[in-house]
Amino acid sequence: MTEAETPSSTPPSARTTVNRYRWLAKYDKDTIHAILDAQPLCHVAFIHDGKPIVTPTMQWREGDRIYWHGAAAGRAMKASTSAEVCLCVSILDGFVMARAAFNFNVNHRSVMVFGKAEQVTDRAEKERQLKRMVDGYVAGQWDRLRPVTEAEMNATTILSLSLDEASAKVRTGHPEDNDADYDFPAWAGTIPIRFDVGEPIPDPRNLPGVEMPAGVKDFKIG
Amino acid sequence: MTEAETPSSTPPSARTTVNRYRWLAKYDKDTIHAILDAQPLCHVAFIHDGKPIVTPTMQWREGDRIYWHGAAAGRAMKASTSAEVCLCVSILDGFVMARAAFNFNVNHRSVMVFGKAEQVTDRAEKERQLKRMVDGYVAGQWDRLRPVTEAEMNATTILSLSLDEASAKVRTGHPEDNDADYDFPAWAGTIPIRFDVGEPIPDPRNLPGVEMPAGVKDFKIG
Ligand SMILES: Cc1cc2nc3c(=O)[nH]c(=O)nc-3n(C[C@H](O)[C@H](O)[C@H](O)COP(=O)(O)OP(=O)(O)OC[C@H]3O[C@@H](n4cnc5c(N)ncnc54)[C@H](O)[C@@H]3O)c2cc1C
Ligand SMILES: Cc1cc2nc3c(=O)[nH]c(=O)nc-3n(C[C@H](O)[C@H](O)[C@H](O)COP(=O)(O)OP(=O)(O)OC[C@H]3O[C@@H](n4cnc5c(N)ncnc54)[C@H](O)[C@@H]3O)c2cc1C
Ligand code: HEM
Ligand code: HEM
Repeated sequence: MTEAETPSSTPPSARTTVNRYRWLAKYDKDTIHAILDAQPLCHVAFIHDGKPIVTPTMQWREGDRIYWHGAAAGRAMKASTSAEVCLCVSILDGFVMARAAFNFNVNHRSVMVFGKAEQVTDRAEKERQLKRMVDGYVAGQWDRLRPVTEAEMNATTILSLSLDEASAKVRTGHPEDNDADYDFPAWAGTIPIRFDVGEPIPDPRNLPGVEMPAGVKDFKIG
Repeated sequence: MTEAETPSSTPPSARTTVNRYRWLAKYDKDTIHAILDAQPLCHVAFIHDGKPIVTPTMQWREGDRIYWHGAAAGRAMKASTSAEVCLCVSILDGFVMARAAFNFNVNHRSVMVFGKAEQVTDRAEKERQLKRMVDGYVAGQWDRLRPVTEAEMNATTILSLSLDEASAKVRTGHPEDNDADYDFPAWAGTIPIRFDVGEPIPDPRNLPGVEMPAGVKDFKIG
């Protein structure tokens, strides 16, 4: 490991100050937003019965807030509401093979956000955010769907977190070996990993004449 | 959502009993092992200063135990050692578009493991596990590398967790709409997502004559 550069901006708080491989730290909004927007899957940690739990969940963003949804009656949403959580989005961009096992690494982009999860309680704002979630995947899709019912709205909880306390770590490029190890005759390099979006598979029960929306064909992730 | 099938085997404990979409639950070892082996990235939740933290980390498995490594001096490893943690591996296999927004979903495979993280303290076992980690990515690579030093071994902590308390959730296939909604003229279907492994990028500082190991060309993930 090598200290190639210093953090690009000031950490927003004591707990978001990166200590390990701290030269990979980024705190600027552009970097944080870009990582969140590239990967909708996040992992939310909360405490339940005094013990930590982490749940994979889909997230979306508006401005300086991040959102996720789930069952109003479920454990994860109930235990997270108004409670301290840590939300993490991480993207594995490659496997980094050095000349020494100790210097193996992965190329990655990740964000950690800390704070108290706030429930979105306003009916209109809830629906606006669910529409943003759906349309964020396929533009215009919400208005093509069977309209949402009150029972569905009531079954759904949306939580959100400010991005005030967030940090990112980003690693790119070649392996970084100790100077002396560059003479060692082991193959070194990186293996890129990315998401691949396949051909959409229409539901066999689609009604005749129903067309695939353009946004489905353009679907991107990563 | 539809209760299509019942769990394939008995949940190992009260806290690993799946409640939400419980018909997606699997508790058999073959399913759990296959998911862990398909995706080396996990997220580990632990409690630090009374608050939850989740850290992305690479995991590997041997039999009925899961392992991860990091800085002996780091917060994540120190706070997790001998403490309750929750480790999650999740794979996003597709985006599932139903006729109603409420029934949107993702195809996925995920595992959650609970327990007290145990430190691997035996020197020989630590090295054996680090070798297994490296060779798990590229067979035979450990023996081609500059040998590990005592300082490197001392800087490294390995934690492990038994898979005794683990659960999986697996969703595959088409959207599941409410019966009445199959008459609604919205396009429904799934968009497959998978990992794509790119061409290996040799380090420009590789010594002349050093060959790319076969395992690098065969690298797989997902
Ligand atoms: C895909 C991937 C795989 C990884 N694999 C491993 C591994 O196998 N072993 C290992 O030791 N580490 C791994 N890491 C790095 C790991 O996530 C932590 O950064 C590292 O373990 C240090 O954790 P810590 O809590 O001790 O760090 P500290 O530096 O003490 O954390 C302090 C603060 O820095 C910020 N921070 C820390 N980590 C991250 C992060 N990943 N993203 C954004 N902000 C962060 C947070 O605000 C945190 O509160 C991986 C990261 C990614 C993205
Ligand atoms: C890629 C992906 C994306 C997801 N997106 C969302 C989302 O946007 N919204 C949402 O509500 N849910 C989402 N889920 C499901 C989510 O992970 C939880 O299963 C769900 O939120 C219920 O959590 P709970 O703690 O309330 O469940 P409960 O069913 O009460 O949990 C009880 C026990 O079931 C087991 N369990 C729960 N979830 C999982 C899991 N995912 N994998 C393995 N075991 C599990 C654990 O042992 C847990 O202790 C997603 C899952 C994946 C894999
Ligand atoms: C892009 C759109 C959406 C995606 C990708 C999505 C994805 C998911 C996923 C993966 C789950 C977890 C299923 C499981 O536990 O295995 C879930 C649960 C849930 N979703 Fe969504 N969802 C979307 C839109 C919506 C909308 C618009 C609503 C409300 C109108 C909604 C309401 C719910 C509720 C209430 C649950 C909990 C179900 C339960 O546990 O009983 N979702 N969603
Ligand atoms: C497949 C092999 C390996 C991979 C993919 C890997 C990956 C990683 C990653 C991603 C990190 C985090 C870097 C960061 O904080 O941004 C890390 C940290 C670390 N790794 Fe590894 N590693 C591997 C093998 C090893 C081996 C064999 C050792 C010990 C001999 C080791 C020792 C460490 C230590 C001590 C740290 C913490 C560094 C610090 O925070 O100062 N790793 N590793």
